[in-house]
Formats: sequence, C-alpha cells, structure tokens
Amino acid sequence: MAPTESGETTSNGYDNLDCSVARTLEHIGERWTFMVLRDAFYGVRRFDDFQTSLGVARNILTKRLTKLVDAGIMCREPYQEHPLRYEYRLTEKGRDLVPILTSLLAWGDKWEADEPPVRLIHTSCGNVMHSQSMCSECGGEINAFNLRLDPVPQIVVERALKAKLAAHTT
Amino acid sequence: MAPTESGETTSNGYDNLDCSVARTLEHIGERWTFMVLRDAFYGVRRFDDFQTSLGVARNILTKRLTKLVDAGIMCREPYQEHPLRYEYRLTEKGRDLVPILTSLLAWGDKWEADEPPVRLIHTSCGNVMHSQSMCSECGGEINAFNLRLDPVPQIVVERALKAKLAAHTT
Repeated sequence: MAPTESGETTSNGYDNLDCSVARTLEHIGERWTFMVLRDAFYGVRRFDDFQTSLGVARNILTKRLTKLVDAGIMCREPYQEHPLRYEYRLTEKGRDLVPILTSLLAWGDKWEADEPPVRLIHTSCGNVMHSQSMCSECGGEINAFNLRLDPVPQIVVERALKAKLAAHTT
Repeated sequence: MAPTESGETTSNGYDNLDCSVARTLEHIGERWTFMVLRDAFYGVRRFDDFQTSLGVARNILTKRLTKLVDAGIMCREPYQEHPLRYEYRLTEKGRDLVPILTSLLAWGDKWEADEPPVRLIHTSCGNVMHSQSMCSECGGEINAFNLRLDPVPQIVVERALKAKLAAHTT
C-alpha cells in the first residue's frame, strides 16, 4: 500500500481497491509523466525529441522515463549500435492507458477548460469525438446512479441495517 | 497552469490540454481525495461517517472535503438546524467523474492488482462488468492505434516534413 499522508492505514478493508487505483494514479498523476505519455502516443520515441517537445529539464525527463520503464508502461529498445542509442516505446500496458487519458480529457473539457478544447479524432470513423464509458456486458451507459462496487463499505451496510431496524421497531 | 517541478513552462503550445488534464488529476489524484469520492459514490454524506469509514485524520478529511467543495465536485448542505449540521453531496460535476474512476479501476485490475479485483456491478443489467471506452460518434472501440489528438505536437509535424523531404530528394 502507498504511504499515506497521515501515516495511518485505512480501516475499511478495501486495500486492494485503494492500491490498484492509487498505483495507477501514481503512474500517470504527475504532470510531466502525463505529458511524456501524451507525446509517446503521438509517436515521439527519442530522448532528445521528448526534451525538445516538452521543454522539460533533462534530469526530470530521465527520471520520468525511467519510472515509466520500471512500471512496464514504456520499454527501452536500441535503435542504433555505434554509438549505442535507445528509444522509448509504449508497451501494451502503456497503450491500455488510452481509456483513462480520454476520460480525463472528456471531463476536463466539459468542466475545467477555459480555452477551446483539444480535438480528439477517431480515425476509424473520421469524426471529432469524445470517449463514452459503456458496460462491457450489455453495452449500456454507466453512470453514478447505475453502478455498484462490491464489497460495500462497512459503514453503508451498518446504516442500512440501522434504518431497517428502526423501521421494524416503529 | 499548475506550477511545474522544474519551474519551467512548456514550450509546445498545448497549455489548454495540459491544464485541463492536469487540473483533473489535481482534483482526484491525491489518495484520500479519491477515497472520499469513492465513499461519496456509495452514499456516505456526513463528516463523521467519512471519518469512520476511511480512518483518516480529521484535519486531513476537512482539507480534502473543502478542496472538493471549492472545486465544485461536492456541495455542502445543511441537514439539521439546531445545532446546524452539514452534509456533503456529489454535484453533477462530481458524478461525471464516474468514467474516470471506472477506467482507472479497469486498468488497475488488469495490470496492477495482486489481489482479486473489486467487482463493479452495472445495476441496469445486473452483471459484473468493467467499463469500455467507445467513440461518441460511431460507437466503435477506441484505442492507441485509432485516435488522433489535434493539434499535433510541433516535433511530430517537423519529423513528418523531414521524412517527406528526404524521400523527395533521394
């Protein structure tokens, strides 16, 4: 589990959820890391090209690329033997970040953008689009009102039980 | 624009993209903030209930709730007059975070979970599911190979031009 700000651990027993999402956020949550990923999606592969594109300090870029390689999100492959030179490519794990990036973009464009939004084009159909999240089983829309996460936090279970008891005794 | 680690600003002119996504990540990227949101999606509304559920220090919880209210993601409403007591509810902007949370969960479950994944149930169809990102226009799958973001970074444009020129002169 990631270290917490308060030094405490959580008491609700959902450590697998916390960890899985917390680790994802650790991978992409840092600003430069996100920008390296965005350029990688465009096909930028070489250290100097990332550096030119992002205008980021070389030591920071080195740290971010190393972190992404260590996380298995990017891989480092030689593209030249003499002298030995490497390029950085997205792995399958890295390419699988697309739904996260597009949903961040859709929300940011709707709620946070004070400038014209960046356009996302689906080359399969040629349209300017935004991503929509659907159920893998029925293909229907998912939203805050039709999703449930199991297990349910203990406090929600307790509150429901209390309400049931109160209704029963009155 | 969010302050950067290096103190530099970016040189590529995509500040609106950077800002929109960077701000989204700022809202949800912090561990306790994400956990407050998760409990809010379950219907937890009162300070003491968040505190009991999360086991987080009260001062940290206060800071996180205030930040979410300031961002318009949650709102604070009185539920009792004497003494005055407030509860915290998700706004529409907050409920719109669902696709981000479910895509984080899907990626984390596939690539990061070392324990059985938390189950997400679509109550509309009753199935255990994961979220899938689709094109808003054609309903087709989106992935790293069929998306393009406009504008394209300058360095990618330049590389394409150079390749064209090289092909033309040989």
